[in-house]
Amino acid sequence: MIKYSNGLKFTKNTEKSREISGKSKSFSYGNRGMNLEGDINLSNEFYKQKGLCLITKRPTPINVVEVDYSKGAIITSAYFEKQSTTDYNGVWKGRYIDFEAKSTQKTTSFPLANISHHQIEHLKNVLKHGGIAFFIIEFSKLNKVYLLDASFVITCYDKSERKSIPYEQFLKNGKEIRRGYAPRLEYLPIIEEIYGNS
Amino acid sequence: MIKYSNGLKFTKNTEKSREISGKSKSFSYGNRGMNLEGDINLSNEFYKQKGLCLITKRPTPINVVEVDYSKGAIITSAYFEKQSTTDYNGVWKGRYIDFEAKSTQKTTSFPLANISHHQIEHLKNVLKHGGIAFFIIEFSKLNKVYLLDASFVITCYDKSERKSIPYEQFLKNGKEIRRGYAPRLEYLPIIEEIYGNS
Repeated sequence: MIKYSNGLKFTKNTEKSREISGKSKSFSYGNRGMNLEGDINLSNEFYKQKGLCLITKRPTPINVVEVDYSKGAIITSAYFEKQSTTDYNGVWKGRYIDFEAKSTQKTTSFPLANISHHQIEHLKNVLKHGGIAFFIIEFSKLNKVYLLDASFVITCYDKSERKSIPYEQFLKNGKEIRRGYAPRLEYLPIIEEIYGNS
Repeated sequence: MIKYSNGLKFTKNTEKSREISGKSKSFSYGNRGMNLEGDINLSNEFYKQKGLCLITKRPTPINVVEVDYSKGAIITSAYFEKQSTTDYNGVWKGRYIDFEAKSTQKTTSFPLANISHHQIEHLKNVLKHGGIAFFIIEFSKLNKVYLLDASFVITCYDKSERKSIPYEQFLKNGKEIRRGYAPRLEYLPIIEEIYGNS
């Protein structure tokens, strides 16, 4: 169980949850020794406890090659697979929510190479079925986090001449997510604002 | 890519998808050398291709203990974790769908020990947030598959004196899912029937 009592426990639990999720990619750290994934997981836990929405993280897919059953199903050989969908999905007021979270150390633009073709296809599909789809993108060095509607990111992605989204576009087309203590990232009011009447 | 051309390929692909999903539990087989998970995955792929709904399988959570980076991030020690949510979720007409699939070799009742407390809590939460929640339960020896609304299963589960759901209850409170060629399990018309007007 995640505890909200002090900073140490935040860090400890995040380390643990990172280990369990089996992520091999490197993390960029925010101003309080946290990473974007940890902040989102804590925020989701907060929203769940408050009964405001239910968002879960998809486990990292792992291809299991060898299992030693003599020791009670210990995996002895396996490798990480690329997530073919997105990291997060869930439900808010009966509606389907799906999003991907990305962090960049760049300060002037977000490189679209961070997003896989599979994820774009998945989010197009989500939109086709009337789901709510967006990205949460962190500029770690600027200590800023934005929510960007998936349709905007998809448009940028499909314009092959553009290899990144300039930071100005985040100010213009995104919504800044307020950082707080609990939740760490107040992204739900933004969902309410953008998608509440659609 | 899953191919729908012949029975052999079905089997081949299912074997592969089973390996990737890293399931350690045993499977019960239907009449065509298939298992429930494989049938559902193929049905989801069919519905996705037809643009009718978008349901994805959550990867099996694996706790990674040791990774050998000298060979390019090969996992050398890990173990399977229990899914704390359910196996499937997705979107249909903007609405959130969440379900768990279970198979039993019993012929007279479905043992509730097959369902974890975490899964019941998760599905209660889904219902609280207005999501569509159900179980797909296979009686493999009878070659019958039923869709049962989650609220009914939760009620049975919470009555501690009852350790299983009698088969008659499936006939009375469930809906039989027709088996076919494509999709293998025609569960979407049942969702339409039960939840279409709610």
